Amino acid sequence: MTNKDARTPASTQNPTETSEAAEAGKSIGWHKAYVEGSRPDLRVPVRQVHLTNGQSVTLYDTSGPYTDPLVDTDVRRGLAPLRENWIVARGDTEEYAGRPVRPEDDGIKHTSPRGGLRNLDAVFPGRPRLPRRGREGKAVTQLAYARRGEITPEMEFVAIRENVSPEVVREEIAAGRAVLPANVNHPESEPMIIGKRFLVKVNANIGNSAVTSSIEEEVEKMTWATRWGADTVMDLSTGRNIHTTREWVLRNSPVPIGTVPLYQALEKVDGKAEELTWEIYKDTVVEQAEQGVDYMTVHAGVRLAYVPLTANRKTGIVSRGGSIMAAWCLAHHKESFLYEHFEELCEILAAYDVTYSLGDGLRPGSIADANDEAQFAELRTLGELNSIAKRHNVQTMIEGPGHVPMHKIKENIDLQQEICEEAPFYTLGPLTTDVAPAYDHITSGIGAAMIAWWGTAMLCYVTPKEHLGLPNRDDVKTGVITYKIAAHAADLAKGHPGAQEWDDALSDARFEFRWEDQFNLALDPDTAREFHDETLPAEPAKTAHFCSMCGPKFCSMKISQDIRREHGGSRTEIEEGMAQKSREFAAAGNRVYLPLAD
Amino acid sequence: MTNKDARTPASTQNPTETSEAAEAGKSIGWHKAYVEGSRPDLRVPVRQVHLTNGQSVTLYDTSGPYTDPLVDTDVRRGLAPLRENWIVARGDTEEYAGRPVRPEDDGIKHTSPRGGLRNLDAVFPGRPRLPRRGREGKAVTQLAYARRGEITPEMEFVAIRENVSPEVVREEIAAGRAVLPANVNHPESEPMIIGKRFLVKVNANIGNSAVTSSIEEEVEKMTWATRWGADTVMDLSTGRNIHTTREWVLRNSPVPIGTVPLYQALEKVDGKAEELTWEIYKDTVVEQAEQGVDYMTVHAGVRLAYVPLTANRKTGIVSRGGSIMAAWCLAHHKESFLYEHFEELCEILAAYDVTYSLGDGLRPGSIADANDEAQFAELRTLGELNSIAKRHNVQTMIEGPGHVPMHKIKENIDLQQEICEEAPFYTLGPLTTDVAPAYDHITSGIGAAMIAWWGTAMLCYVTPKEHLGLPNRDDVKTGVITYKIAAHAADLAKGHPGAQEWDDALSDARFEFRWEDQFNLALDPDTAREFHDETLPAEPAKTAHFCSMCGPKFCSMKISQDIRREHGGSRTEIEEGMAQKSREFAAAGNRVYLPLAD
Repeated sequence: MTNKDARTPASTQNPTETSEAAEAGKSIGWHKAYVEGSRPDLRVPVRQVHLTNGQSVTLYDTSGPYTDPLVDTDVRRGLAPLRENWIVARGDTEEYAGRPVRPEDDGIKHTSPRGGLRNLDAVFPGRPRLPRRGREGKAVTQLAYARRGEITPEMEFVAIRENVSPEVVREEIAAGRAVLPANVNHPESEPMIIGKRFLVKVNANIGNSAVTSSIEEEVEKMTWATRWGADTVMDLSTGRNIHTTREWVLRNSPVPIGTVPLYQALEKVDGKAEELTWEIYKDTVVEQAEQGVDYMTVHAGVRLAYVPLTANRKTGIVSRGGSIMAAWCLAHHKESFLYEHFEELCEILAAYDVTYSLGDGLRPGSIADANDEAQFAELRTLGELNSIAKRHNVQTMIEGPGHVPMHKIKENIDLQQEICEEAPFYTLGPLTTDVAPAYDHITSGIGAAMIAWWGTAMLCYVTPKEHLGLPNRDDVKTGVITYKIAAHAADLAKGHPGAQEWDDALSDARFEFRWEDQFNLALDPDTAREFHDETLPAEPAKTAHFCSMCGPKFCSMKISQDIRREHGGSRTEIEEGMAQKSREFAAAGNRVYLPLAD
Repeated sequence: MTNKDARTPASTQNPTETSEAAEAGKSIGWHKAYVEGSRPDLRVPVRQVHLTNGQSVTLYDTSGPYTDPLVDTDVRRGLAPLRENWIVARGDTEEYAGRPVRPEDDGIKHTSPRGGLRNLDAVFPGRPRLPRRGREGKAVTQLAYARRGEITPEMEFVAIRENVSPEVVREEIAAGRAVLPANVNHPESEPMIIGKRFLVKVNANIGNSAVTSSIEEEVEKMTWATRWGADTVMDLSTGRNIHTTREWVLRNSPVPIGTVPLYQALEKVDGKAEELTWEIYKDTVVEQAEQGVDYMTVHAGVRLAYVPLTANRKTGIVSRGGSIMAAWCLAHHKESFLYEHFEELCEILAAYDVTYSLGDGLRPGSIADANDEAQFAELRTLGELNSIAKRHNVQTMIEGPGHVPMHKIKENIDLQQEICEEAPFYTLGPLTTDVAPAYDHITSGIGAAMIAWWGTAMLCYVTPKEHLGLPNRDDVKTGVITYKIAAHAADLAKGHPGAQEWDDALSDARFEFRWEDQFNLALDPDTAREFHDETLPAEPAKTAHFCSMCGPKFCSMKISQDIRREHGGSRTEIEEGMAQKSREFAAAGNRVYLPLAD
């Protein structure tokens, strides 16, 4: 992406988001609002949906400043660093020169015809910044603050978002049951929390690969994913321009960004797993931490001794990170350098408040391999590493599968919660069958909803392209929407306070034929409106007292309403009226059908 | 549909189905095969998938003769009556003149300009037939035969389909735990069974409405739905040509057809619920039974006294049949005529072997209304009606919700099984949240998978257009595929014998980079292939040893395979080799990372 090519991502060009359209304010059915906290610079964004009956509904909002017509966004400048003052005010971090960025950070080889120059016309042009880290001897993680009893502005922010008290947030973080991923070098991000006491979260993966994709597309996918509700985004880029892509993504992201540093480290050794070293890996982690990555997947649980456990599997090792580490272990016949250097890694992560996402490198890649010895051996090691990370004040979540049939799902969350002392579980699906490539958002959405109900804190989305290809814009949206459904279904099943208000508002609108309210309250208003208009396109149909599925005579809701109208105006009246009739009916001897005596 | 317009449905024009393409036989990856039973006219269709490694996989097949290139199908002639000889040979039925078809059966009013003539150019032109019914005093239902200890050809057919013994089939039917819907007037249908001991089934709804659609489209939707795996189809037509549409659908359907006779009865009284009478309803049931409808939804559980229970609901009564009956009950302030005449109805259904699908007219239409008093009051009545139907030897299944949050799903199936003596449960979803119109195939696919795992025998699909409009061809396919996923995920979770073989075959193909086998084994081969080709269109990519998602360097399966190759040829070798290394490693003192001591 060159400077002149840089532009507002297409997602923000949608009429419902540009300032022109949004100026129309309530006429489009919703607007971006803010709930102010205890200080003027603590403003929590919400989506305020205005109903035609004069009421309004407030929804959680992940879309960032892009949906605020009063904010002038520019991807070349990046988002405003809303957390910067909070971080600086704590006085426990310092700016420093940072690690010099090298051509190989972008996958540019010294031997390339361009002489090892970085791809300078793609470099992020925003304001110059120095990286920041914790001062010597200072624990600068949200976990450390929570343990000390401090409620940070970040904690207050998520408390308002989740509609709970700040103290609940602090307690859950302090206990290691929740994480608040917030690298001190990503001040642009709006704080959010991941833990079973809170709303179930959804991660969307983006990332170019050696085969396809560009920086521009990745930035756009990120804003697009958050527009539809992604709570975090993982940049899984593996090709060229990996450092620069990440910089663009981070500077423009209103949500925490996760990565798998191993992917970039492997690029630095030309894809030869056996040439990986702890030094190269560590340097990559520092590089990414300085950029502001909020959480990192680390496959430190793939130990040498576990690799043979995968030998009889149907699909071997399906995690990229897991297979890379297994290859390294076998090539050297040595214990994993990630496992061996885990405490040193903790110290690095603690200095930036990078959250661990302990990767499940041995997760099952098929129904046949679910819940096997390899998978659970690694989980026990993740439990051990979780304890170590906590001692270093590093926030930690644990990754989970994968492909698991429904009857084996609960064992996964139960074991993880037990072994990892209730650390947040972060699962990929799980996919409940292998037979539906092109529909794995659905095979996995089923498993995701179930495991989230049972306690998983964040769900990693799966798109329709899983197993087949790289997701495009539509796939990203489908993946996010599917996972928002799974997450919300779980919030309902967990009885999360306030979760059902959204369903109730939509169902009220449905029963009262307030079509525009139904659309505006829908998870995907655009598609709901489009589907309705396919059958009944005319504008009057949107005030019609029947749905296009059944037509006027057969509309059950219309009949239901007619019943209420004819037999009393309000619900109370009809209830009383009918109850009275019913009593009369009973008093008259309940002359009804008598089995066998007819 | 006029004779000259009549044509082979588009679904059969797909290259993978026409005789030209299918002649290529194994080259397209699969062919229609038959498993012969104890007699030459008992041939059970299967889909035989040929793998590139020389093996083959046999899959359940619902697509009928349309996918057999050796059968010359013609929608104007209808399918061959494969069960006719079995029915005639039993000697307990008789042909008779039948009820005369009247213009109003097609919604043509006497006062219409056409003078009440039937829409004769649309009349099904196939061979003339007389309706058939049980002789006086003869119980001609599969339930009656099963109770008498008889194993019918129909039972043997489904035993082969399900890979169980015919005696298991007989026992389950005799106990009322399974139904085999097989009207003596629908000899074209291939027998199938619905019960918790068997594979979970999927129903697809089709049907024109007053607003849109045509006969032609409905026949095409039926063949299209069965092509993708619908086990039964319900014709929910409510507009014009309702009788004639049904005739075309029945004569061409290889799967059992269900209806809701109340819809047609209401058309006969111009949509005025209060004008419905038992006589009009009964006449409609006979009309449909003579045509060959295999199961009928009857909302006999909506009793007068239950209507007030819906008064405080968020979304009232959302079942069309339920709301019509509630309106009738209130208008007359009388007990439901369906409830009052239930035994008489049983006698009619028994004469044709029409299966009851006892409708849940008071099912919840929103999360707020799930598992309420109205719903469970009706369920108890359905239990009572189930017992009565059984006494009359009428096969019976029970319909279930609807909109139910995940934590309230299990109560539904548990109560239904208890109250209805394990009669097959047939549920619509349930939808696990109300907030995602346009994605209700997914909100409900989640609930469907769960409730099927817990014992629901058949799932009624929901399409993306639910709540918004009438499903088109793509929506029907998406609905069926989503529900096949839910059903198969449940089969796996129930440990249905053989269910996992399909997953295993696909996962083996995936691990071994047999792309064509992956596509051919997929629930939807076309879309899987298309998605793959979007990212890596070239033909060589289909033999590539990596997937387009990660590219060659990052393909975990490739690395897994490389590991196996480098460390031993076969799985056994690598396991032994690695186990040996592991023992050496342990013997050397397990010199690994020691927590806290590094």
